[in-house]
Amino acid sequence: MTASPDHNHLVSAEAIGVDIAALAALTEPDRPWTRRSFTPMFDRGRDWLRAAFAGAGLTTGIDAAGNLIGRRAGSGAGCGTILLGSHTDTVPDGGRFDGVAGVAAALEVVRALDRAGVVLRHDLAVVDFLAEEVSGFGVSCIGSRAMAGIMPADWLERRWQDRSLAEAIAAVGGMPEALGRPLSAPLAGPLRAFLELHIEQGTILESEGTAIGLVRAIAGITRIEIIVEGRPDHAGTTPMDGRNDALVSAAPLVEAVRHEAARPREGRHFTGTVGEFEVFPNAANVIPGRVRLLIDARAERRSDMEAFIAWAKALAAGVPGASARVISDNPPVPMDADLLAVLAEAADAAGVSHRPLTSGAGHDAAHVARLGPAAMVFVPSRGGRSHCPEEWTEIDQIADGAEAIARAVIELDRR
Amino acid sequence: MTASPDHNHLVSAEAIGVDIAALAALTEPDRPWTRRSFTPMFDRGRDWLRAAFAGAGLTTGIDAAGNLIGRRAGSGAGCGTILLGSHTDTVPDGGRFDGVAGVAAALEVVRALDRAGVVLRHDLAVVDFLAEEVSGFGVSCIGSRAMAGIMPADWLERRWQDRSLAEAIAAVGGMPEALGRPLSAPLAGPLRAFLELHIEQGTILESEGTAIGLVRAIAGITRIEIIVEGRPDHAGTTPMDGRNDALVSAAPLVEAVRHEAARPREGRHFTGTVGEFEVFPNAANVIPGRVRLLIDARAERRSDMEAFIAWAKALAAGVPGASARVISDNPPVPMDADLLAVLAEAADAAGVSHRPLTSGAGHDAAHVARLGPAAMVFVPSRGGRSHCPEEWTEIDQIADGAEAIARAVIELDRR
Repeated sequence: MTASPDHNHLVSAEAIGVDIAALAALTEPDRPWTRRSFTPMFDRGRDWLRAAFAGAGLTTGIDAAGNLIGRRAGSGAGCGTILLGSHTDTVPDGGRFDGVAGVAAALEVVRALDRAGVVLRHDLAVVDFLAEEVSGFGVSCIGSRAMAGIMPADWLERRWQDRSLAEAIAAVGGMPEALGRPLSAPLAGPLRAFLELHIEQGTILESEGTAIGLVRAIAGITRIEIIVEGRPDHAGTTPMDGRNDALVSAAPLVEAVRHEAARPREGRHFTGTVGEFEVFPNAANVIPGRVRLLIDARAERRSDMEAFIAWAKALAAGVPGASARVISDNPPVPMDADLLAVLAEAADAAGVSHRPLTSGAGHDAAHVARLGPAAMVFVPSRGGRSHCPEEWTEIDQIADGAEAIARAVIELDRR
Repeated sequence: MTASPDHNHLVSAEAIGVDIAALAALTEPDRPWTRRSFTPMFDRGRDWLRAAFAGAGLTTGIDAAGNLIGRRAGSGAGCGTILLGSHTDTVPDGGRFDGVAGVAAALEVVRALDRAGVVLRHDLAVVDFLAEEVSGFGVSCIGSRAMAGIMPADWLERRWQDRSLAEAIAAVGGMPEALGRPLSAPLAGPLRAFLELHIEQGTILESEGTAIGLVRAIAGITRIEIIVEGRPDHAGTTPMDGRNDALVSAAPLVEAVRHEAARPREGRHFTGTVGEFEVFPNAANVIPGRVRLLIDARAERRSDMEAFIAWAKALAAGVPGASARVISDNPPVPMDADLLAVLAEAADAAGVSHRPLTSGAGHDAAHVARLGPAAMVFVPSRGGRSHCPEEWTEIDQIADGAEAIARAVIELDRR
């Protein structure tokens, strides 16, 4: 446990811990912790969350995108909404904190303001975004993309377990036919701010001993596919000097990508990973005839990514039988500078240490940023582990982040 | 077409071509040429073959292993059997010659001896081994292993499409309950010789312009699995210098295996191939946490294989998180020297050029060699292509091999 100055905190770490434990209990029993979107277990989590929202005095509803939103009306009609939250769905065998920490923190901020008798002019709302993680439909951030009006229309036709995504969104209470433009309801008025607390999923805060990270940007994510073609001859009868082995050609690309990605960039966030690597036909007695590899690259600065894309294409051009193509390319999303300043002041006032960070992971905030000012608060992840059962953050560490958000909400409302 | 001296051949190339074309027509219509064991199309092939055997005057039956055998009784009771043949099953999208050429050649040898009025003291039999290729049950050479009494008993419990292998063998007419020891019936007396004609599946004969290869040994096949363990962290949030990427560790092993396998061994056959290479979890945004690679190594000489196994274990020992284990290890099988000498004389007499070869592929003959003298005759493969629709051998080239076998049969019977 970190030594946090919670004697003067508005938020209750204990209450956050209770909520996180309650959601953790709603897991596929044989593979903790699993609560994937569009499964019955997710629905059970949503039932619990709806009751928790109601218990905190929130008026709950589902927007057209299938996001669960709890609203606390403000005193100043038309001031707009300060939105807090994250997501409660998980990856298979995932953790108890990714997403959940942000929803639990948001809920506790609402209760803390109530306890403190704080009346806001703005509406205050808590959101549980639908399907932030890659679900059975194979795509991520469905709820936040749809809220921002940027979910590709053809995603609605994706199918999983005999349902289209449109049917699955309708089944959680959404209205897929209303998607395709930015949503407002059930939020009232303009979005004044979106603040998302999330675990860091990295080790910078832990290794430095800093309480929270204020996310200055969400890295751009670009995926580059390289296909290497060879000739799938018999592994036993084809002489070693008469082969065109696609795996022999492709394997050195892995180290090349690592080396280029690891090149120093004056402290700017950059990662490059070959995460998918597939060999065809992948049979013991057949020389590999084709290899497909997928590079995941993340950059804080767009020019770094553009240089990397050019490098990767040149790399592939130098390998006989290889070709590269960019299959997705999302630019970095800067967070709102004013919100970050307010968060920094709030953290200082609460005695919570902080530092700027770049998020290497994608988040709902990257999409919500299209609707209004958005910022993220990171809390430490033990060992940087995430998307696995070992994922861990101390509850007091989450409370530190929630405290900064609570105080920032008050300040934003005041301005 | 090669210029073969078939003016004095006993066998008819045309008849061989007719039979190969007839079997080629029995293919899954949408993926020529596919006739996998334990499928309805295979049964249709067997029906055709049974009729062809009967048409050549053979008494046909199915042995306990599910092999189809056609027998021509000899004049000398108890002399034993000269067995010819191969297999008619294919891999998916396979070719028209692998296996089929050997069965069609054997059948034509029988007819040629009849036409020439040759009476043999030995029984002469033609076999179509069951499931030489890897079938849905995931294993190869079922019929020849079972005939030799060396099929692992637990293979009978393997399952595919709601059937056990035992049930599938029974369905083609075998008696799985009788397996576990070498079979004799429906062969009569000892095995005097087994001669298998097969396509080379390599390029040596074609590149040299030699008509047939006399296989001095079937290479030993050893499979070595290497597992490399890393840590499956988030690809976007884990700094490049804080990773344990199993793929980065494993990729250089591919070139190391190729380099070691390609080392000259004084002309002795050796191949080493990483044919299976799997990354886990194989997700774009997760650093590879584990890689499994499977080395397929083939050696004509056992000492070469033993040195390679030791090298591979040392290789893995030098990679953090890696471990190697031998998962199958079959020694080379020498072919019978006396049979090879008889075949060489027969080829010379027929004006068919020949050279010694090593088979890098496994064959039914490797198992049948446990029951008696065995040898193989290779015929050229265009471009070495095999297990693919492009697989091709000229019918006259098959006839050259069949001619050598026909004359060898006469000589073996005479001795």
